[in-house]
Amino acid sequence: MTTAFRNWQAVQQEVLRRIHAREWAPGNLIPNEADLAAEFGCARATVNRALRAVAEAGLLDRKRKAGTRVALQPVARATLSIAVIRQEVEDKGARYSYALLERAVVRPPAPVRATLNTADAALLHVRAMHFADGLPYALEDRWINPQGAPDVLDQPFDTTSANEWLLEHTPYTGGDIALSAHNATHVEAQELGCNEGAALFALTRNTWNGPVAVTRVRLLFAPGHTMQADL
Amino acid sequence: MTTAFRNWQAVQQEVLRRIHAREWAPGNLIPNEADLAAEFGCARATVNRALRAVAEAGLLDRKRKAGTRVALQPVARATLSIAVIRQEVEDKGARYSYALLERAVVRPPAPVRATLNTADAALLHVRAMHFADGLPYALEDRWINPQGAPDVLDQPFDTTSANEWLLEHTPYTGGDIALSAHNATHVEAQELGCNEGAALFALTRNTWNGPVAVTRVRLLFAPGHTMQADL
Repeated sequence: MTTAFRNWQAVQQEVLRRIHAREWAPGNLIPNEADLAAEFGCARATVNRALRAVAEAGLLDRKRKAGTRVALQPVARATLSIAVIRQEVEDKGARYSYALLERAVVRPPAPVRATLNTADAALLHVRAMHFADGLPYALEDRWINPQGAPDVLDQPFDTTSANEWLLEHTPYTGGDIALSAHNATHVEAQELGCNEGAALFALTRNTWNGPVAVTRVRLLFAPGHTMQADL
Repeated sequence: MTTAFRNWQAVQQEVLRRIHAREWAPGNLIPNEADLAAEFGCARATVNRALRAVAEAGLLDRKRKAGTRVALQPVARATLSIAVIRQEVEDKGARYSYALLERAVVRPPAPVRATLNTADAALLHVRAMHFADGLPYALEDRWINPQGAPDVLDQPFDTTSANEWLLEHTPYTGGDIALSAHNATHVEAQELGCNEGAALFALTRNTWNGPVAVTRVRLLFAPGHTMQADL
């Protein structure tokens, strides 16, 4: 093929066509970027941009040294952006407010101790509600490890949420999230102002600073919450 | 500071410390990589790796030409990997199977027409169940646009799912996903073998090939489903 490809989208379409036509079969190495640029009559950066897009869609596996192969098992990737809750609410054009429900220093239940690897240590437990335009938006249930969050025991969290305070004051190096659906219990339903049993979107997040647990939080969003991402 | 930093994790810790100590304040430009490498006594690639990690955690905003600034509003990013359902089930160590529930060429309801921008065209509607070890795993409700998926009307989808067939035969250039929680209806509960009203994790995905809609699918997972990602 000697047609010049004018932009990366055109190169992407041709790459997709070859993959779907099995001209480039699953598991096979594809030509390198320089050869493709020569074939397509475009800049190498254009080929790079196109291959990156196809790789992000999960159809190519790119390895720095081993080259680029057609994926055996395509995996699509979507990136979730998780902002501080105040920002998330304000980005929806709503007024944010916050209320502390409960604050105590206690030994967490066994599953939390096991996840955070905090043995018998007492952690700070905080329950709080985040509001959008005065209506319950998300119910927060959080455990904070004082070993991973210096000065946290001095914080009342009565006006500033732990969500905001931790982001500003506590470094973390990594973590994980889990998304699921949860039927509102009687208490949760009262707090969120919904029916008992309502399907709630739940986001559980653990964050770490190196080997030390910083915090574990579960957010239960009021009914109807949706989390979106581009593919 | 003239201490040599041995690895990118050490550089990352120092960058986090400066951000949290407000030595580098929100919105401020930080020194460039070459200057930081000189200051830290390490390779520029080490600084790059560290800044990338901090940017992925949402605390730095990196712009190719404008340099790197401390984020005004930190946004954490998590990448979800979405495999074909067969692979997802097999990755859990379970046996995958599939059953077609319904297949028809019909005009979709208004919200689907509006989302896919397919006007009055008839689309292929497929309902199917994916099983793990013989138990319902995910209920699929899918609309496919023949304009975006050539030959799709010739496919019976009685043994191969549309999920797998589309991935192998139909190019797409982009899409979006939405995650939410949904109370099982009477029919869904019967199909999934759960209680009516059970909280189900729902994943809705639209995919496009340029301006042409390819497919819209809603997957309702059996109770207890969790989607996980690293921060």
